[in-house]
Amino acid sequence: MFDVVTAPTRAKLADGRDLLFFALPGHRPAPVEDRRPLPPRDPDRSQLRFDRSTGQWVIVAALRQDRTYKPPADQCPLCPGPTGLTSEVPAPDYDVVVFENRFPSLSGAGQPVSLPPDAGFVSAPARGRCEVICFSSDHTGSFAALQQAHARLVVEAWRHRTAELMATPGVEQVFCFENRGEEIGVTLTHPHGQIYGYPFLTPRTATMLAQAREHRRCHGANLFADLLAREAADGARIVARTELFTAFVPFAARWPVEVHIYPNRFVHNLVELDDDERDGLVRVYLDVLGRFDRMYPCPLPYISALHQFADTPAQDDGYFHIELMSIRRSATKLKYLAASESAMDAFISDVTPEAVAQRLREL
Amino acid sequence: MFDVVTAPTRAKLADGRDLLFFALPGHRPAPVEDRRPLPPRDPDRSQLRFDRSTGQWVIVAALRQDRTYKPPADQCPLCPGPTGLTSEVPAPDYDVVVFENRFPSLSGAGQPVSLPPDAGFVSAPARGRCEVICFSSDHTGSFAALQQAHARLVVEAWRHRTAELMATPGVEQVFCFENRGEEIGVTLTHPHGQIYGYPFLTPRTATMLAQAREHRRCHGANLFADLLAREAADGARIVARTELFTAFVPFAARWPVEVHIYPNRFVHNLVELDDDERDGLVRVYLDVLGRFDRMYPCPLPYISALHQFADTPAQDDGYFHIELMSIRRSATKLKYLAASESAMDAFISDVTPEAVAQRLREL
Repeated sequence: MFDVVTAPTRAKLADGRDLLFFALPGHRPAPVEDRRPLPPRDPDRSQLRFDRSTGQWVIVAALRQDRTYKPPADQCPLCPGPTGLTSEVPAPDYDVVVFENRFPSLSGAGQPVSLPPDAGFVSAPARGRCEVICFSSDHTGSFAALQQAHARLVVEAWRHRTAELMATPGVEQVFCFENRGEEIGVTLTHPHGQIYGYPFLTPRTATMLAQAREHRRCHGANLFADLLAREAADGARIVARTELFTAFVPFAARWPVEVHIYPNRFVHNLVELDDDERDGLVRVYLDVLGRFDRMYPCPLPYISALHQFADTPAQDDGYFHIELMSIRRSATKLKYLAASESAMDAFISDVTPEAVAQRLREL
Repeated sequence: MFDVVTAPTRAKLADGRDLLFFALPGHRPAPVEDRRPLPPRDPDRSQLRFDRSTGQWVIVAALRQDRTYKPPADQCPLCPGPTGLTSEVPAPDYDVVVFENRFPSLSGAGQPVSLPPDAGFVSAPARGRCEVICFSSDHTGSFAALQQAHARLVVEAWRHRTAELMATPGVEQVFCFENRGEEIGVTLTHPHGQIYGYPFLTPRTATMLAQAREHRRCHGANLFADLLAREAADGARIVARTELFTAFVPFAARWPVEVHIYPNRFVHNLVELDDDERDGLVRVYLDVLGRFDRMYPCPLPYISALHQFADTPAQDDGYFHIELMSIRRSATKLKYLAASESAMDAFISDVTPEAVAQRLREL
């Protein structure tokens, strides 16, 4: 349905970071030289540390204390900078652009990382990749306001980055996400998301894959496909369902607003979605975001997390899906993570998933 | 050193909830009748739901949307209510008081709970216990402002509740905690904490015990004792150390301010601490809280979580300790959980644990 553009225009920023332009049909990116006097990058300012009490890696990225924090609109580093002196995107305009984060938690991916926990304090360089993806050169608005063709271009960019980063040595997991709302700590309002290439499998993904392995052992089937089929059969928590995608509030939702979007056909990641499915994803995603925006007088703050898996034996039961979550529990109240959640990982929800699904269906 | 008071004075609130007074030497609680027309309790308004994708229970407590939210000081439900008409504590005064939460996530503990996850949507009544513990009848102040003898009385109350709830059928884990700060969602400013009796082992505790089992299998020793010995030997992250207790910022801290306090002698829980250790705990805890209060112009918001374990084969390597954490990352900025933390459980810290420990040591 849409023209597919997969080959980005590549450029470099002044300190050597990669910059990739993804353009709508008929548009031709015209990057200019980045003439800012940027300090050299120092990938060793970030470190992985192994938490022996949980078996999890923690990223210690001290340089992020200095990162850009709520700049005025006329100094937005994500708006196009035609002079090459004012912005992370030295160009008169762009459709969708991806570049390496100037304040990365993870950087310097490219070599295999060996992380052998032994009995002592284990740390390692925080190799990996942190990218910023700008959804539009328009400073205002958000993903929900994108035209379908433009949103599809974002999906193509996500897909391109997923394929390239998954093939990068030392990257174990590719995580595309987008956040909206100062309530959840977004420090730049220009519509953008981020892409992480982690050098380890994240704790949640490892847990989900372990559950899927156990489910296959007991039931001989894919856990996520079973969950999806049960949600579709039950119906009480369905928010939107098309021939290709299903959006639902999960039975055991943890957040005041939580919606999971699955393709009806099993795939591991965006790369495996066919052309029609990429169109279908755009439609259902914009549909869900539109419902979010109609819930309250103000747009709903949210985190949208793309759960992607590699086509490898260890991750074979990983089923691509998007998990959207919001901490807004009413027009005036936010859900804070309290002690049960923060200290014990035991979530307490104030609303029933069925009530939230009904509300979202009716909007 | 302090007189120990372990037998509380017991009373009942109008809707049948338990109320327990813990008194300093020479004080005699004088509860009056709770004459408020409270609606009957409905333990079935709360539910456990099993999240098959993570193997974790989620508590769905819809009634908590109605809970008391930042009342004016003259309507504080935790201040003493001598008329029996205005407060959760019908008495002219109190030292430390514990009562069942009027808006509980978990309630009706007393029978063994059977939670057999099968292949479908699994839910169960949210049996368990939620208690409120008021540290003082003084509406202002916080734990850090308590006199040592008064703080010791809180420890005795925590200890009493731990012993009683651990012996209650259907309670799998007892979690005493206290929070401070509107920044982290505290809705009542009167100094208080909470005590949960979960009907399941929380995800974090289960993870920690699994790590400890694996450590014992590989190294033949207690994981937490090894971590404590290594922190003491390294020294760079020690905040305070006495003959009986050690407070340190952990090597892989997840939060901008995070301090763990361990007794130097291995015990599973508060009940196993001897008399001197209970005194020692009060001293080191007040010392750490005092440092927290001197970090910034405003008192540091924090969550303090008591990790307690049962003396059972499954939990035998569980080492009692307190984990304190704060989301304040500078005088003006908070750390929000972003997508990496919220969606993937992968924590990114902006500060090195050594820098935080040095700061806290010097305060």
